[in-house]
Amino acid sequence: MLLERVDSPEDLKALSLRELEQLAAEIRQTILDIIVGKTGGHFASNLGSVELAIALHYVFNSPQDKIVWDVGHQAYPHKLITGRRDRFHTIRQPGGLSGFLQREESPHDHFGAGHASTSISAALGMAVAGRLKGERFHTVAVIGDGALTGGMAYEALNNAGSLQVPLIVVLNDNEMSIAPNVGALPKYLSRIRTDERYTQAKIEVERLLHRMPQGDWLLELGKRMKDGLKEVVYHTMIWEELGFTYVGPVDGHNLRDLIETLQQVREIDGPVFVHAVTVKGKGYEPAENDPFKHHAASIKIPGAPPSPPKYQDVFGETLTALAREDERIVAITAAMPDGTGLLPFAKEHPKRFFDVGIAEQHAVTFAAGLATQGLRPVAAIYSTFLQRAFDQVVHDVCIQKLPVVLAMDRAGFAGEDGRTHHGLFDIAYLRCLPNMVLMAPKDENELRHMLKTAILYEDGPIALRYPRGAGVGVPLTGEPHPLPIGRGEVLREGDDITIVALGTMVLPAERAADILAEQGIHATVINARFVKPLDEELILSSAQRTGHLLTVEEAMLAGGFGSAVLELLAREGLRLPVTTLGVPDRIFDHAPQGVLRKQAGLDAETIAARAAALLGARPADVPVAGGGA
Amino acid sequence: MLLERVDSPEDLKALSLRELEQLAAEIRQTILDIIVGKTGGHFASNLGSVELAIALHYVFNSPQDKIVWDVGHQAYPHKLITGRRDRFHTIRQPGGLSGFLQREESPHDHFGAGHASTSISAALGMAVAGRLKGERFHTVAVIGDGALTGGMAYEALNNAGSLQVPLIVVLNDNEMSIAPNVGALPKYLSRIRTDERYTQAKIEVERLLHRMPQGDWLLELGKRMKDGLKEVVYHTMIWEELGFTYVGPVDGHNLRDLIETLQQVREIDGPVFVHAVTVKGKGYEPAENDPFKHHAASIKIPGAPPSPPKYQDVFGETLTALAREDERIVAITAAMPDGTGLLPFAKEHPKRFFDVGIAEQHAVTFAAGLATQGLRPVAAIYSTFLQRAFDQVVHDVCIQKLPVVLAMDRAGFAGEDGRTHHGLFDIAYLRCLPNMVLMAPKDENELRHMLKTAILYEDGPIALRYPRGAGVGVPLTGEPHPLPIGRGEVLREGDDITIVALGTMVLPAERAADILAEQGIHATVINARFVKPLDEELILSSAQRTGHLLTVEEAMLAGGFGSAVLELLAREGLRLPVTTLGVPDRIFDHAPQGVLRKQAGLDAETIAARAAALLGARPADVPVAGGGA
Repeated sequence: MLLERVDSPEDLKALSLRELEQLAAEIRQTILDIIVGKTGGHFASNLGSVELAIALHYVFNSPQDKIVWDVGHQAYPHKLITGRRDRFHTIRQPGGLSGFLQREESPHDHFGAGHASTSISAALGMAVAGRLKGERFHTVAVIGDGALTGGMAYEALNNAGSLQVPLIVVLNDNEMSIAPNVGALPKYLSRIRTDERYTQAKIEVERLLHRMPQGDWLLELGKRMKDGLKEVVYHTMIWEELGFTYVGPVDGHNLRDLIETLQQVREIDGPVFVHAVTVKGKGYEPAENDPFKHHAASIKIPGAPPSPPKYQDVFGETLTALAREDERIVAITAAMPDGTGLLPFAKEHPKRFFDVGIAEQHAVTFAAGLATQGLRPVAAIYSTFLQRAFDQVVHDVCIQKLPVVLAMDRAGFAGEDGRTHHGLFDIAYLRCLPNMVLMAPKDENELRHMLKTAILYEDGPIALRYPRGAGVGVPLTGEPHPLPIGRGEVLREGDDITIVALGTMVLPAERAADILAEQGIHATVINARFVKPLDEELILSSAQRTGHLLTVEEAMLAGGFGSAVLELLAREGLRLPVTTLGVPDRIFDHAPQGVLRKQAGLDAETIAARAAALLGARPADVPVAGGGA
Repeated sequence: MLLERVDSPEDLKALSLRELEQLAAEIRQTILDIIVGKTGGHFASNLGSVELAIALHYVFNSPQDKIVWDVGHQAYPHKLITGRRDRFHTIRQPGGLSGFLQREESPHDHFGAGHASTSISAALGMAVAGRLKGERFHTVAVIGDGALTGGMAYEALNNAGSLQVPLIVVLNDNEMSIAPNVGALPKYLSRIRTDERYTQAKIEVERLLHRMPQGDWLLELGKRMKDGLKEVVYHTMIWEELGFTYVGPVDGHNLRDLIETLQQVREIDGPVFVHAVTVKGKGYEPAENDPFKHHAASIKIPGAPPSPPKYQDVFGETLTALAREDERIVAITAAMPDGTGLLPFAKEHPKRFFDVGIAEQHAVTFAAGLATQGLRPVAAIYSTFLQRAFDQVVHDVCIQKLPVVLAMDRAGFAGEDGRTHHGLFDIAYLRCLPNMVLMAPKDENELRHMLKTAILYEDGPIALRYPRGAGVGVPLTGEPHPLPIGRGEVLREGDDITIVALGTMVLPAERAADILAEQGIHATVINARFVKPLDEELILSSAQRTGHLLTVEEAMLAGGFGSAVLELLAREGLRLPVTTLGVPDRIFDHAPQGVLRKQAGLDAETIAARAAALLGARPADVPVAGGGA
């Protein structure tokens, strides 16, 4: 295998075009063998970027030259030829390679990735730094057509076009992001792809001009026509308008063309936009034919028992059913119709379903606009991606008290997608917002009731956070019914300690209570349901009765649910031994959710141990100086 | 006065063109009299939008038709003709009209505003809702050219272009946002404005074609030329590429043209982009000549003592001086070179200064890119606007631990700009992020030292929050020097209670201690300096010594600095009477900062009273059940 001789991009330079083509085939086979065959993961995009990665590393000299990959779904071939071949089978495994890009992982990963649309901003920063420091290197951002619908990519293009530093933006245009692309820009891209006029017209008119009789008005006409064509050829491109030189479209699977193009644009002193057309899933027929379905591979263990339905599917099916009876319901996704579970909704209520592209900011304010007209918009956005729309949640939803439903999937640990995808900050960043109601279901059946609660809540925004993946396996019983706002649920009563658990932590808290019971410790377990408003009465009365309090949540401790409880206790002057369990203040890498929860101390055994320790601890009760205390 | 007869947009319909022109003059004079003469506020943009507001309300029927104004800096004329004439003199005053748009203020304010670039998303939501509900109304978004550089505007255009609902986007193009616009898009706009070719060429070529001899190749040529021109005229526009029909440019001060144009586009069944060219400060010569300087009027009270320098200016001058000796320092603003105090920096270090436009998301990731190359980027973004870049702070800065300095001006109450502009959430949304260091200076001199601290800090991101407006008046002494990370400062010692104050609350806390001293209560006052990492040792030891603890900050209580202290106490098992003071969980409207602080209970008297109450309170100490406690 040629691939075995490639330990760094340097090794590509000695290869012939034919050898590079062979290398491409080997890389493709390696991805298919390992990702589709063994580990699972995003493979379709990565099959589409094989030649791009080879050509970029052949033409440029990383790490001196900076190649910034957007999102990272397209970076597996890049990983394979930058010294990570031997660890490639560990991708997305605990302790293994990241599924995206990480600066610590390789000097060739110039910028971390995970969320879309960041590459042009980062690359522009590098290019500007190079100019300021008088260093000569090339900077390349490789961005997918999906990521290009994100507003920040456009902000960066606008800035780059005016700064006029050398910067090469390679559009890896595979005509779809995760789902088929939506919006006007993709249509525009496809027009360019299919339209030969840009080059044909030029050739033809040149030919015609040569055959023309001479005359004043004809000269004038010819000149004018040429101007017109110049406009057509050079200035109908959005990117030209933004100050870029446009080159393309180029076949993103033709190594010779790619290499020649990149060699040419390398010499241009200013921002260049290279439009490479690729095929998602290239070389793997099932994926080429249905790349949407084959965005990522998940590995089924043979003989494994069927798992409970996913939260996302319970969400999607419940919303679809609720929408049958409530015409006000509309659903919005930012390029995640499948991942959010909204496909059944899209199918049954196509006119009330909006995929706005990778555009979370717009998604939320668009929802706010819908809400002003009495509709009940449900914006289904992963917790980690709602960070993109934080200001819109504050400014357009909360301040205006508009009844927008925020359905935050992938709250808590995201698992194999790792550090960029965990949804751990949502409690802190939403709890501080006036008018916000925030809840978390203990299981997939409660999710149904909470969704109904959210739809019926008319007083302002309401958010619900629920985890990635399979539910806990409870039956989905009864019609969805509204829960009282701000009221928790007592799951069991005990006199020794109160455990208040939120969302995914309710079940482990109940198991912890079982463990404690074996030690003779009797815990009250409360399913908090609401982060905001808190069930103050229930928490206070139970804490007072049991004398000890433990809170547990799958979110950052700083500013989280436990902090809300501490704030309550301080406000009420209630002082008792309290332990708050949640995610500690550090970055967590990719691993199965269960592993990560254990790492964070969020498993039944640790909860039980911390509860027992709290009961056993000598509380540092401070003698009150002065006053009547 | 005609204006006195206009109580609602309905009253415009009966007026003749001449009367409408007279009305425009009266509105202009009213704005000049009241804003420039009395209340202060944004007036230049509002002088530029007089005819637009009249024409829109003449042609459309609000509130049935929805007119959504972006930002609101352009909405004073709209306010004057929608029933708020009599209260116009109260604008930006406590209890008076908002300086922006608010749904509660008028049925003609269809969507609240304050931050830029939201109008197209909101209007699209309304238009889609209209279609779904089968209601017939027109929807108009009025957006400035500055706001159009914000990524979410582009996300919305992309979505609108593909949804193809009737939506009119009026670009109020005055060639500058707050500062002169930057980026490639403004250059493009100006090319359209100055280029007559689009219409001239068409006319001329039609004429030429009529004079042409007939012949096959000439027919072909003519056809091809016409196609080319069609491209030039209709398709060189970015907005056409995005699926909009482009109309313009139209003179935004010519009422006849505006009305005719709007009447025409009203009938188009799909998204339309109307490009209106206006002059900022129109009708007021000093502002027309230097609109940047005259963006807003501030009213000087005659005979008032000179106020201390503003925080923003101390920041800007300190950074300028530091950059003289440290070549790594670069400064970034998102369209606020003046408001952030960076003009001296831009003047002295023009190559190291970057105004990226209204593009906070890009600003932060661009800074991250610069940091990867060893530069020391300082992104100066108001606290409220940094909300726009929350995900970029998480994903590109904190997760990658890149040394980006976030200088958050306008932290705390923003004052007259009101509800959309307060910087009250930053502690909650930044404190939960791993790797983040967050500090707040007690005065403008400490800001200098903190800035030096930030520049020298190499381990990751570091943010500082400081308030809008004048400093407290301390001398700016000594060279800026680094402060130890995570260490607070004891300002006075007392045995009865510990008051830990952050930033702007340090001075009131000291005054509160004076008040308490008069009552025989002796307080220790700590200047916390750091929200993260907390000076745990100092806070714990002082709290233990004094037995009572009060924290005070100018930020939301939920998840704020006080919560960090509560988390610390819970973790350490230290139970004592604690009061946390901060901003309660509600929306605060516009008023002078001092008034708002008092409303929130953040003045010396209230702090003292709450401290005394804490000392006097019977603490609800819970008997510990079970365990060794």
